[in-house]
Amino acid sequence: MTGKGDTVKTNNTVVFQSDFGLVDGAVSAMFGVANAISPQLHLHNLTHEIPQFDIWQASYRLIQTVEYWAPGTVFVSVVDPGVGTDRKSVAVLTESGHYIVTPDNGTLTHVAKAIGITRRHEIEEAENRLKDSQHSYTFHGRDVYAYTGARLAAGLIDLDGVGRALPAQETVVYPSTPARLENGIIEASVDILDIRYGSLWTNCPRELFAELGVGRGGYVSVTITHHGRTVYGNDLKFGQSFSDVNVGASIVYINSLLNVGLAINQGNFARAHDVGAGTEWRISFRKTTTQEIS
Amino acid sequence: MTGKGDTVKTNNTVVFQSDFGLVDGAVSAMFGVANAISPQLHLHNLTHEIPQFDIWQASYRLIQTVEYWAPGTVFVSVVDPGVGTDRKSVAVLTESGHYIVTPDNGTLTHVAKAIGITRRHEIEEAENRLKDSQHSYTFHGRDVYAYTGARLAAGLIDLDGVGRALPAQETVVYPSTPARLENGIIEASVDILDIRYGSLWTNCPRELFAELGVGRGGYVSVTITHHGRTVYGNDLKFGQSFSDVNVGASIVYINSLLNVGLAINQGNFARAHDVGAGTEWRISFRKTTTQEIS
Amino acid sequence: MTGKGDTVKTNNTVVFQSDFGLVDGAVSAMFGVANAISPQLHLHNLTHEIPQFDIWQASYRLIQTVEYWAPGTVFVSVVDPGVGTDRKSVAVLTESGHYIVTPDNGTLTHVAKAIGITRRHEIEEAENRLKDSQHSYTFHGRDVYAYTGARLAAGLIDLDGVGRALPAQETVVYPSTPARLENGIIEASVDILDIRYGSLWTNCPRELFAELGVGRGGYVSVTITHHGRTVYGNDLKFGQSFSDVNVGASIVYINSLLNVGLAINQGNFARAHDVGAGTEWRISFRKTTTQEIS
Repeated sequence: MTGKGDTVKTNNTVVFQSDFGLVDGAVSAMFGVANAISPQLHLHNLTHEIPQFDIWQASYRLIQTVEYWAPGTVFVSVVDPGVGTDRKSVAVLTESGHYIVTPDNGTLTHVAKAIGITRRHEIEEAENRLKDSQHSYTFHGRDVYAYTGARLAAGLIDLDGVGRALPAQETVVYPSTPARLENGIIEASVDILDIRYGSLWTNCPRELFAELGVGRGGYVSVTITHHGRTVYGNDLKFGQSFSDVNVGASIVYINSLLNVGLAINQGNFARAHDVGAGTEWRISFRKTTTQEIS
Repeated sequence: MTGKGDTVKTNNTVVFQSDFGLVDGAVSAMFGVANAISPQLHLHNLTHEIPQFDIWQASYRLIQTVEYWAPGTVFVSVVDPGVGTDRKSVAVLTESGHYIVTPDNGTLTHVAKAIGITRRHEIEEAENRLKDSQHSYTFHGRDVYAYTGARLAAGLIDLDGVGRALPAQETVVYPSTPARLENGIIEASVDILDIRYGSLWTNCPRELFAELGVGRGGYVSVTITHHGRTVYGNDLKFGQSFSDVNVGASIVYINSLLNVGLAINQGNFARAHDVGAGTEWRISFRKTTTQEIS
Repeated sequence: MTGKGDTVKTNNTVVFQSDFGLVDGAVSAMFGVANAISPQLHLHNLTHEIPQFDIWQASYRLIQTVEYWAPGTVFVSVVDPGVGTDRKSVAVLTESGHYIVTPDNGTLTHVAKAIGITRRHEIEEAENRLKDSQHSYTFHGRDVYAYTGARLAAGLIDLDGVGRALPAQETVVYPSTPARLENGIIEASVDILDIRYGSLWTNCPRELFAELGVGRGGYVSVTITHHGRTVYGNDLKFGQSFSDVNVGASIVYINSLLNVGLAINQGNFARAHDVGAGTEWRISFRKTTTQEIS
């Protein structure tokens, strides 16, 4: 949508994410800073329930939401175990035309890989910092990120006003192995849990899975390993929606991000089988043969 | 306020409810879809902490809030255990002039009975679905309900634009027995718990209770049964507010929806006496006689 | 910023706080009441997760946020164990130009002491009450506070329209002892926990601590007592940000409100050492001598 060097007009909308929780005043202080910069801003939340310091999950929640907001929206994501270290504070522009203001600590992993980053500017904190906050060193979310994100969203500064340009391709990302198909077997990993429902969301895209040639109602042989140890192995039906299997039955399906998911209809797959998420949780799929089914 | 066939102008306000929780990006994706349709929309929450698949509670939370919002407000409620089944997706207009976009699975029970539904249209999903979402079958909240609710709220479509009209009186509702007074005894049920404070909220309206003739400070004989077994029986004071009894004492009072409630002043009645909510939790009230008190 | 008798123009913004939680419809009913008064209002949250009836914490969360919002913002805070008693309902104007609508039950303690209150008016409930709510006695948050706060924010009434003026200096506050330095030892208390991260936030301001003469990287002898019993005693490094010590190490630092805090870098100090907050949790600081360090 945009190319390197392009710019996208911001639209007065800021969406906040953090690991602060909602039990105290931290999120509200960030909202206040933004509102005081411009009462015209629309202030929204992604989530503030990222587990503390879980940068991977912050990265995933961005990819789960960013493209559903209008281009020009500014995201402020603050999961920042390294506050006070030399990790950089940046504002980036994505290929999809969205801005993200965040510590550059891996939070941009999924967005960089799946959407792409076209511009990346380091926040010049001497200029872009809440007035009179120079004695506060532990709450960059309020003093730097909310402040800068709000000014960007309100059009008071652009990326050049944020600070000097850095190479977009050097954005900090976590290493990860994409799903791959070999000899009729897909090797993938459990990227994240759909926490509330206990479903597994893998990094295997719909298109790759389609190459197995399993139609709706067909069967898939699923194996899950953790650090090499098999923790689950079963033949599961591939369905379109949970109701394609009975309540309490397991299903392989395409989730709302168009990747392969595993769920128990109205149950909790992760809890039922003690499965977690992360690169060490590997999952493989192959088409179940007719003999195996019968 | 409105009659069958009438219409009410929407007011750019959408209020969301779901059982998604706030720990991931699901709610924010719905907000993004709505915001991208029109940045003029005011987006708010009812709650997203409905226990998973608890349609009854979703229904109750609507009756607890709908009429406090201005007529023309659009509610989007997504508690949808049957996603992918043939449960209908509908948008309805209430007697009070509010719109509700929801799976028609019982979520409208309380609103249909206590407010009334004047119009009910089935969502024609071929037209009313987020662009490019045709491969997503598990997140109608984002792809269909938020999308349709936002377009309704922004005035881009009206109910006829949602889809064909269905008979309003065939809205799906759960069976329930209204409270009734016979021989000086009111038979009612515990409709729901005021979770945070542990109070019981019954389905006995203020006006029916008044027929017992118990004044402020008078006593009521209360019996609670579960599947026919008595779990609580006591004579309690009828007060106006919690402070009419000592801290730690129990009270019968009129709650904020003007039904009879039971509480412990600054305590938790439900936890203290292991009482739950639902049609199988029956409660009876009669006026305590003078001899019983003395 | 403002003097006694002055007035400050409200800015169409209401920020809500309560102990209601977000699991039911209570907060949304308050938002609905405000939105129905004026759709132009910007409605935001401080937090609704104040522990039930914990007025002290409500007071602290106000001081944590109020001044980050623009002057003219109206706060509605409802932690109200005394609903129905003769505790007063008030709207106040602070020295910083913010309005707070609340039961006058101690919720204003920190704001009164640290910011100052210039005007205080009692809510005349006969006039300032949601239409048709006269039979509801248990939800002043919706019927009185949200209603009055929204009308104030929308400019439909001013403080004189709220009700009669009361002496600002008689605002109800909890007793508390400010931190003090004597013979090289600071005696302070643990004002509150930074719940999510388990840090201790004391009532010792940065300036008082500076008088100990401990520079960045220097050591502080810390003693924590509970009802006179010592529960923690150690020499800790004074750092600027958590990363000044190793992950898992403890640190004394200046928090985001510019008071002294204690934390474990990426850990939980309160849980590690079973420390709570409140006036009975006393903490002392003195500069560690060179001999003690070596």
